[in-house]
Amino acid sequence: MNDIASKVLKGEPRSVARLITLAENNSPDAAIAMKDIHPNTGEAHVIGITGVMGGGKSTLISEITREYRKQGKKVGIIAIDPTSPFSGGALLGDRVRMMELAMDEGVFIRSMGTRGMLGGLTSAVYDVVEILDASGKDIVIVETVGVGQAEVDVIKIADSTLVVLVPGLGDSIQTIKAGVMEIADIYVINKADRPDVNQTVAEVKSLVDIDCSNKDRKKPVLTTNARNGEGIKELVNEIKKHKKYLDNSKEFDNKRMRRYEAELIEIIKKRLMNLIFDESKFKEKVESLIYKIFKKEVDPYTAADEILGKILK
Amino acid sequence: MNDIASKVLKGEPRSVARLITLAENNSPDAAIAMKDIHPNTGEAHVIGITGVMGGGKSTLISEITREYRKQGKKVGIIAIDPTSPFSGGALLGDRVRMMELAMDEGVFIRSMGTRGMLGGLTSAVYDVVEILDASGKDIVIVETVGVGQAEVDVIKIADSTLVVLVPGLGDSIQTIKAGVMEIADIYVINKADRPDVNQTVAEVKSLVDIDCSNKDRKKPVLTTNARNGEGIKELVNEIKKHKKYLDNSKEFDNKRMRRYEAELIEIIKKRLMNLIFDESKFKEKVESLIYKIFKKEVDPYTAADEILGKILK
Repeated sequence: MNDIASKVLKGEPRSVARLITLAENNSPDAAIAMKDIHPNTGEAHVIGITGVMGGGKSTLISEITREYRKQGKKVGIIAIDPTSPFSGGALLGDRVRMMELAMDEGVFIRSMGTRGMLGGLTSAVYDVVEILDASGKDIVIVETVGVGQAEVDVIKIADSTLVVLVPGLGDSIQTIKAGVMEIADIYVINKADRPDVNQTVAEVKSLVDIDCSNKDRKKPVLTTNARNGEGIKELVNEIKKHKKYLDNSKEFDNKRMRRYEAELIEIIKKRLMNLIFDESKFKEKVESLIYKIFKKEVDPYTAADEILGKILK
Repeated sequence: MNDIASKVLKGEPRSVARLITLAENNSPDAAIAMKDIHPNTGEAHVIGITGVMGGGKSTLISEITREYRKQGKKVGIIAIDPTSPFSGGALLGDRVRMMELAMDEGVFIRSMGTRGMLGGLTSAVYDVVEILDASGKDIVIVETVGVGQAEVDVIKIADSTLVVLVPGLGDSIQTIKAGVMEIADIYVINKADRPDVNQTVAEVKSLVDIDCSNKDRKKPVLTTNARNGEGIKELVNEIKKHKKYLDNSKEFDNKRMRRYEAELIEIIKKRLMNLIFDESKFKEKVESLIYKIFKKEVDPYTAADEILGKILK
């Protein structure tokens, strides 16, 4: 076995961080290590947390992590939201909270930037989930902003997905309608000390009532106030209940199969794009075709066919 | 020439709508027509409009369109924001405004949903821009929410990009920092009747001062109040000034080359993914590999190599 892979399996934080960086950079060494660690993955409970900006997701994640730590669980956190305090874009108070978590040896925090078109953020996130899983984390939390398609794709990796809303934010309900509904397993109305909380809860509950994406299970709607820890214990209980529900149904296997399908798609995409746009033997051809498209000497579809003809059997 | 292509070139709205649907559905007929229309594209000025939810982007777009119409220009609008009134998620007042636009024969509005992982929203948007361009629209406006990576990718298609912010929204500045800065050509502070407008303008201007993404041109910061039309004329003038700036610099050609590069990447991605995941000769193989990954009999990287070995020369 690869040296870095065996160190990751022992949970060494520096090797974990190094392998993540290699994976982010599409290094061939990463692929070798990923092959080695794959048999030791699949145990972690992957929790996706998404929601509007300013919903207090990061504070919520800190509190959820604290609760899991009390129960002796190791936690990995992956922040993809570029405005997240985990990613550095934070208020001082939030940062202090993160620092406390970061000092805890049972917690590993990683913030991931967005990638270029060729790189594939989604593919890198899948790798990082596998790495944290293999390193012995019981819980892996993936934080994202629930607006873009890429972010919705990312959250599909999770076993349990929390959609975080705040009272009185008019956009909330529209956000839910716009495709988030089918990915939610648990709704959390955070900042529950705000006025309008009852109205927001009622609105979300009425949406849950008409949601037919899962007939076996009614999606719970919880309120929390992450800043003072209210409702966190109940929320963690609800997340664990969802995990139990998954274990007892076929849904867990289905979710994991979908995750591996998505992972496979992303790796293939990444490899093909690197082949076509990064390798020198095609680079010149591609660049001359782009120029010809610009000059209207060829159209993009014909150009694509020409490139594909060079690489496909 | 293909029948639908020649009708699109004549600007027939029903053929335009039909070709867009074909392109969205990845139809081979679309590819044929796209080849025919490509030589007649490149004339439209493509304006990207992005910004936070609730920033009043749609009202702003209505007013910008009205102003261009007064000047005799034909306008195409592509809405990708799922919460946009153009996409149906609207307040009644906004919808009335859209209806008025929709009745104008010189305006073509198309709302686009998000697509699956294989489909590629970005690729379809590129097609739609080319179709509207070929159909004789002088201005093509692309509206998106500027949060996700996919949306930032989409907006790269534009010649001129407006980033819309509103006063007092704490997230605004963080949004700008998080990667939007390099894509902005013009900043618009909408809802300028709100308190804190001066502070927001000052904050954005201070960001513009330290922005080194373009040394030849200082990015303007404008205020508008789209609901009553304030500042719209000035904004349209500024957009036209930016177009002139592009025409006189090398930047326009560079932008277009990058657009065609992105378009080529998207078409190739789409074709390869369809080949691997939709064509029956691979489907069974792919599905058995996904099951093996799930069973830990193979890892995702090895599985990807196996599939690639089957299709690559």
